[in-house]
Amino acid sequence: MKAISILGSTGSIGCNTLKVIEHLGDFRVVALGAGENVGKLAEQIEKFQPELVAVKDEKCAENLQRQISNFKFRIPKIVIGEQGLIDAATHEQAETVVSATVGAVGFVPTLRALEAGKRVALANKETLVMAGELMTKAARDNNAEILPVDSEHNALHQCLRGESKREVNRLILTASGGPFRTKTKQEIENATREEALNHPTWNMGDKITIDCATLMNKGLEVIEARWLFDFSADEIGVVVHPQSVVHSMIEMVDGSIIAQLGVTDMRHAIQYALTFPERKGGELEPFDFTKISQLNFEEPDFERFPCLALAYKALKIGGTMPATLNAANEVAVQAFLDNKIRLSDIPKIIESVMNEHETQKVADLETVLSADKAARKQAIMKLENLKKTASAK
Amino acid sequence: MKAISILGSTGSIGCNTLKVIEHLGDFRVVALGAGENVGKLAEQIEKFQPELVAVKDEKCAENLQRQISNFKFRIPKIVIGEQGLIDAATHEQAETVVSATVGAVGFVPTLRALEAGKRVALANKETLVMAGELMTKAARDNNAEILPVDSEHNALHQCLRGESKREVNRLILTASGGPFRTKTKQEIENATREEALNHPTWNMGDKITIDCATLMNKGLEVIEARWLFDFSADEIGVVVHPQSVVHSMIEMVDGSIIAQLGVTDMRHAIQYALTFPERKGGELEPFDFTKISQLNFEEPDFERFPCLALAYKALKIGGTMPATLNAANEVAVQAFLDNKIRLSDIPKIIESVMNEHETQKVADLETVLSADKAARKQAIMKLENLKKTASAK
Repeated sequence: MKAISILGSTGSIGCNTLKVIEHLGDFRVVALGAGENVGKLAEQIEKFQPELVAVKDEKCAENLQRQISNFKFRIPKIVIGEQGLIDAATHEQAETVVSATVGAVGFVPTLRALEAGKRVALANKETLVMAGELMTKAARDNNAEILPVDSEHNALHQCLRGESKREVNRLILTASGGPFRTKTKQEIENATREEALNHPTWNMGDKITIDCATLMNKGLEVIEARWLFDFSADEIGVVVHPQSVVHSMIEMVDGSIIAQLGVTDMRHAIQYALTFPERKGGELEPFDFTKISQLNFEEPDFERFPCLALAYKALKIGGTMPATLNAANEVAVQAFLDNKIRLSDIPKIIESVMNEHETQKVADLETVLSADKAARKQAIMKLENLKKTASAK
Repeated sequence: MKAISILGSTGSIGCNTLKVIEHLGDFRVVALGAGENVGKLAEQIEKFQPELVAVKDEKCAENLQRQISNFKFRIPKIVIGEQGLIDAATHEQAETVVSATVGAVGFVPTLRALEAGKRVALANKETLVMAGELMTKAARDNNAEILPVDSEHNALHQCLRGESKREVNRLILTASGGPFRTKTKQEIENATREEALNHPTWNMGDKITIDCATLMNKGLEVIEARWLFDFSADEIGVVVHPQSVVHSMIEMVDGSIIAQLGVTDMRHAIQYALTFPERKGGELEPFDFTKISQLNFEEPDFERFPCLALAYKALKIGGTMPATLNAANEVAVQAFLDNKIRLSDIPKIIESVMNEHETQKVADLETVLSADKAARKQAIMKLENLKKTASAK
């Protein structure tokens, strides 16, 4: 039995990871990290009986304690906050850590897991966006592995098996194009929260679904790919592919393209990351060509989707700029989800924060965290300004 | 400089191989084997200056001798017939032998090349169809390699890199569907020679183009795949894909599909087979997603294309049955190209020959050659009978 710790266990990836683990039958859950969804966490504790669980704060801990106090088996140790997540990420017994928290909260715990030499199945893309250099260095220095759980990077990982990096011309990430692929600039500008949350092919959390609608998700994935596979911005392309059947591709120097295809079910990528280098059979279904008979491909439109261009720009500038982009995006997306701004305000806020950011080299953790903090502050100020401008009108 | 010998140098694959060699710049042509196209062979001799050339017969040899007698450089040795092709296939200096003759003529020379421990870049699929067991055994016993040049098998070879065979569920060969993909049974029955030769995506020789129209080509490829990659008939599927962009795929036990995509240019597969395990850059273009924006997939129709079903049947029966299928097909296709029979007569002749064939184990070369000979004789008799029936009407 391999021991596993899951950060973000009550989220979309977390729940799917637990389904995969149930199905595989050869993993033992030693730690779970969640946020405020204490009810679901209690169910998971009952089913998987971890030794340690991390929740957001003291209040959640008390709440959880009440819910599980009458459980028959040994009650897990409950820890809180970032240190709690770090404890879960570095649990002595855990060989594999699934990093699936949403946003920047998973950053430090993931770094600590890598420093502890764990295999990290990484779904938290912000981690690599914010500090890809630190993360990959930590992995190298501590003989840790990063296995991508994002379906696109997982696809790239599969395509790159058996290939030599210097014979790869470029990586090609596919993008579903999101709910606004065929919409005009004006329509995107006026899109509602509900329209933006209506993703055509994938069923995911709110934050990432909005990122899909703006194509920021693809932009973050370009940055993520840069660090996971060590390719430059110019060597990473994006192709819009509405059916999301081709999960990504690599183009070789001899003109050959290797692609990975599959159904849109995150369990595939999760299982691959857990069982690599092996592949396991079982309940996961292959793609059925009789069901989807047509695949389409088109170029991404950087004008209607300025977030994608901003991500490329941040990657090319490097240093603390991607962390700044990511932080501003998190603030702006939350504001959109709270119905405070329009969808088209998201890139405006990010661009404005980026323009005022003085890029620094990513020397250490503090540099990144301070850039992240500053960008959030800046983004909140931009939000306030937007509100003022709007009420002044 | 790696030394290479090309069997079938004046054909479609042969000429493309020479283009690839010119472009790569690190191969030296030591032998060329051709049939009757002495004019083109003379041009190739002038350009590549091989040490040995094989032609069909004495007459061709004399003709060639006249054409090249005034060449400034050393005139190559001219050899004839099957023994001539064998001499070219086993040329002492040749490390790589491209086996690209059409039909059964390349059979023995290819076997001899494998016995001599050469790397065989195999475009002559009949070789594996007739005697896959003997060929693969010869390769194993003599530390020789078979690298497929057929775009589909080449694609499978690329997909299988870095994968473990026991983790592969099945191979999926793509088929363009040929010129009659959307035609009715009746329309296919009455198709003219010109219609059948009008392949939608690939530009190839006549015999293989007719095989594409009947889907026998895909059937032969299923048999070929069985031997190249050691999968059973049930583990090899066919998907019709009219654009021929996805050259083939493998389905893994975890539901993941790995595909190889590329432009429809045989030079890609040829170059891959010559440079493997390396990939070389240069003048070969990658597939451009802005040019083809849509890919379609459909199930093959075994009723309108009975040749595909016959090939599966022959593979499942095994022994000398695939050789019988292949021989009957060669005779029938030639008769169709000579305007002697209708397209729909091809599967009828093959089925009738197969029905009368008593399958034997493929113990040695003689078994195969004798099954081949008998099937040709039988097929010719069937042709005569068809003529008689037709004139009696």
